Amino acid sequence: MSKEITSRKDDYAQWYNDIVLKAGLADYSAVKGCMVIKPLGYALWENMRDVLDRMFKETGHQNAYFPLFIPKSFMSKEAAHVDGFAKECAVVTHYRLKNDPNGGGVIVDPEAKLEEELIVRPTSETIIWNTYKDWIQSYRDLPLLINQWANVVRWEMRTRLFLRTTEFLWQEGHTAHATRDEAIEETRKMLEVYATFAEQYMAVPVVRGVKSANERFAGAEDTYCIEALMQDGKALQAGTSHFLGQNFAKAFDVTFRDKENNLDHVWATSWGVSTRLIGALIMSHSDDKGLVLPPKLAPMQVVIVPIFSKDAAAQAKINDTAAALMKTLRANGVSVKYDNDDTTRPGWKFAEYEMKGVPVRIALGARDLENNVAEVARRDTGEKASVSLDGLGEHVIGLLSEIQDNLYNRALTFRTENTRKADSWDEFVKILDEQAGFVSAHWDGTGETEEKIKELTKATIRCIPLNNEQEAGACILTGKPSAQRVLFARAY
Amino acid sequence: MSKEITSRKDDYAQWYNDIVLKAGLADYSAVKGCMVIKPLGYALWENMRDVLDRMFKETGHQNAYFPLFIPKSFMSKEAAHVDGFAKECAVVTHYRLKNDPNGGGVIVDPEAKLEEELIVRPTSETIIWNTYKDWIQSYRDLPLLINQWANVVRWEMRTRLFLRTTEFLWQEGHTAHATRDEAIEETRKMLEVYATFAEQYMAVPVVRGVKSANERFAGAEDTYCIEALMQDGKALQAGTSHFLGQNFAKAFDVTFRDKENNLDHVWATSWGVSTRLIGALIMSHSDDKGLVLPPKLAPMQVVIVPIFSKDAAAQAKINDTAAALMKTLRANGVSVKYDNDDTTRPGWKFAEYEMKGVPVRIALGARDLENNVAEVARRDTGEKASVSLDGLGEHVIGLLSEIQDNLYNRALTFRTENTRKADSWDEFVKILDEQAGFVSAHWDGTGETEEKIKELTKATIRCIPLNNEQEAGACILTGKPSAQRVLFARAY
Repeated sequence: MSKEITSRKDDYAQWYNDIVLKAGLADYSAVKGCMVIKPLGYALWENMRDVLDRMFKETGHQNAYFPLFIPKSFMSKEAAHVDGFAKECAVVTHYRLKNDPNGGGVIVDPEAKLEEELIVRPTSETIIWNTYKDWIQSYRDLPLLINQWANVVRWEMRTRLFLRTTEFLWQEGHTAHATRDEAIEETRKMLEVYATFAEQYMAVPVVRGVKSANERFAGAEDTYCIEALMQDGKALQAGTSHFLGQNFAKAFDVTFRDKENNLDHVWATSWGVSTRLIGALIMSHSDDKGLVLPPKLAPMQVVIVPIFSKDAAAQAKINDTAAALMKTLRANGVSVKYDNDDTTRPGWKFAEYEMKGVPVRIALGARDLENNVAEVARRDTGEKASVSLDGLGEHVIGLLSEIQDNLYNRALTFRTENTRKADSWDEFVKILDEQAGFVSAHWDGTGETEEKIKELTKATIRCIPLNNEQEAGACILTGKPSAQRVLFARAY
Repeated sequence: MSKEITSRKDDYAQWYNDIVLKAGLADYSAVKGCMVIKPLGYALWENMRDVLDRMFKETGHQNAYFPLFIPKSFMSKEAAHVDGFAKECAVVTHYRLKNDPNGGGVIVDPEAKLEEELIVRPTSETIIWNTYKDWIQSYRDLPLLINQWANVVRWEMRTRLFLRTTEFLWQEGHTAHATRDEAIEETRKMLEVYATFAEQYMAVPVVRGVKSANERFAGAEDTYCIEALMQDGKALQAGTSHFLGQNFAKAFDVTFRDKENNLDHVWATSWGVSTRLIGALIMSHSDDKGLVLPPKLAPMQVVIVPIFSKDAAAQAKINDTAAALMKTLRANGVSVKYDNDDTTRPGWKFAEYEMKGVPVRIALGARDLENNVAEVARRDTGEKASVSLDGLGEHVIGLLSEIQDNLYNRALTFRTENTRKADSWDEFVKILDEQAGFVSAHWDGTGETEEKIKELTKATIRCIPLNNEQEAGACILTGKPSAQRVLFARAY
């Protein structure tokens, strides 16, 4: 298989697909819109999951698991929710196959029709709030802080590996609170958890903000989000945290007695991130040689490649040096592989590990070892250096940290350079067409204007940044007064 | 809510359900046959998953993720497989809901009918082997050692929490090999991983064996299994490992070139354990006071309960002692909670933690502390002891290990006492009816006899134990010659 990939300049979308397929992150499947997550992609997801899971537990959440199926009637209990999700639901109508008596092979058994159809969960608010009704009676049962790791299905017509697939993996937090303020605090706290994860682990800087009414989750009073900027200047929503008010509590009649014995509906939040984050990770850092992974999430952080020597003593020294280095690195929690497969050449291995995004590659050759050095290559910049064997382990550990920082700073610089103010319609359109990126512009606050801008430019309001500067201005489309700029972009 | 549970003697099935519900392991859901796994149940599953996952990785396996849906036509490609699973499949036929124009609420949109129906995976051999076709060309691609953690759905008419549910969580390993021998070796290796996990972590002794032809997995050449004995004398299949021969490779046309460039079909295995293991865990160790958990899997291993003192200095000493003890325990990887909630009484807490199966409970009271001791209670035997504060941490760590061993030995003794030989039909029936447990008996080796015995007694052949003693005898039903005894039992 050729490992050549399309360059970003030639065809950004093809470059992305090439990386996903050729680095072995995912594959297409026989089921339209569903992907196979291959071992490297899944190992990356496991690392992301483990960090997030720890962060959720540290903020007091517990995991649980709710049914994959949702009775059809549940979907319509919250009016906005059904409008948002009914159009893309996989529906289970039967529970048995049988042999066609007319010889047509295996068919659906018409006698095994369900009384009420079941929806494969597109998100679990309804089944979970139906359960919470039994779990919550008193203020003593609150807050209820639950998270679920699960697969969900949204029937998508146009899919892209990781970014938009019919089935995807995610986590969904669903919390219940006694007061509005506490629920809003939770919503914001989890947004900050996501932002911290994106920035400190994924090395992806994000804008924290609130969605406009048009872009809100179906059933939410407010949707908070983190927005990242990809290398092609398009934005990507990397996580959302919803303040659901009492909408679902009212739809499923979940009430509680407070300390004064008053009955009230419970306040809710939900929040989620998905395997889409892998798409964000790829598009933030990777280059024309393949995947680039931040060290904190890379399944393999360091690879050691021997330059085989025919001299047995020299080869033994290479092996010993590798063994000692691996011992040091592993003792420091670094994942490292010694690739001493003698059926492939070093050059082939170099290209392979570049494709797979391994942050640091160390080549050990007999001549270098005679000079007490090794060649250390970093994936982010491609730089190679001759590094003394004395303290090589410490050097590599420092380098991993440096790469993590560099990836973040590089992405931050890119975002800063690609966030522009527009003060007129012409300027707005020109930036979108010629430079892309985030555009900070005034908007009159109406859904109609937002819709019109989307129609004309395909740009959407990504968010109203938190702690946004208040500044009087005029809407770029209508000229009507505006109290603040909002962030526009074309988006994934 | 009353925490009283039915005793095992009065109603074993009700006792089991009481524990699941009242210890907070799982709950019924609004979807028939599907359960909600509550935080304690899920934490237990996470611990089991983490240990198994480590064992799989140590034996060279990688995780991946395949689609939830399987095209209907795939199910019928392997003849035995479709017979085994078609009768219990959830079938997706549509991909959209809409508002009924006649005012009937939300209905399935008849225009959104799938061309080919999709089955919600009951197991993933078919979709995975369809994928392997693209992944395997040469002996260099083998062995392919993949595991998946996933939810699966089998439409069950009679369900029981954890033991038999329509949706359940599991892992399924799917491996591909160049030779028959290597695949059989893998099948046996993974059976041994399961057996080790059951015995060393769950503290559940298991019989390793092979299924009779009648009880084989649909599509397997051989099904290996581990069988455990529950406290009511019924057996429970705790894990299976299948040698699939070339059946799926032939059904999905997966071939490879060997080193001599010959083309052959690939050899396969699959193996799985599920959330059913939680049912096995409950029924192996628990008692009439509630859940009993083996320390190695307990989400909370130790709980410290203060006996509140009104004397501030005495209370401070209680708090300080708890803090120091927690520090020691946590430094040794022990999960411990200090329950200093002052709204519930110690007696209530004792009952609560007994119900939830916490292995060790430590009570700290002012008077005890004056005497430099604490009260340490172990959940498995109910014994309480006054233990010196000096070295209390080490004592508790040793006690956890002792409890783990005791649970295993107790279960092993029970199994030994409840495994009996029967040499006549009358004896066989009498044991089953009066004593239950495993019955070791001769069988003529035919499926007909096996079926007849099942009809007459509800007992099935649980397995032909590995390394079974060869002993000539006569079949208990037909009197025909038999070369070895096999293990019968009524089973879950």
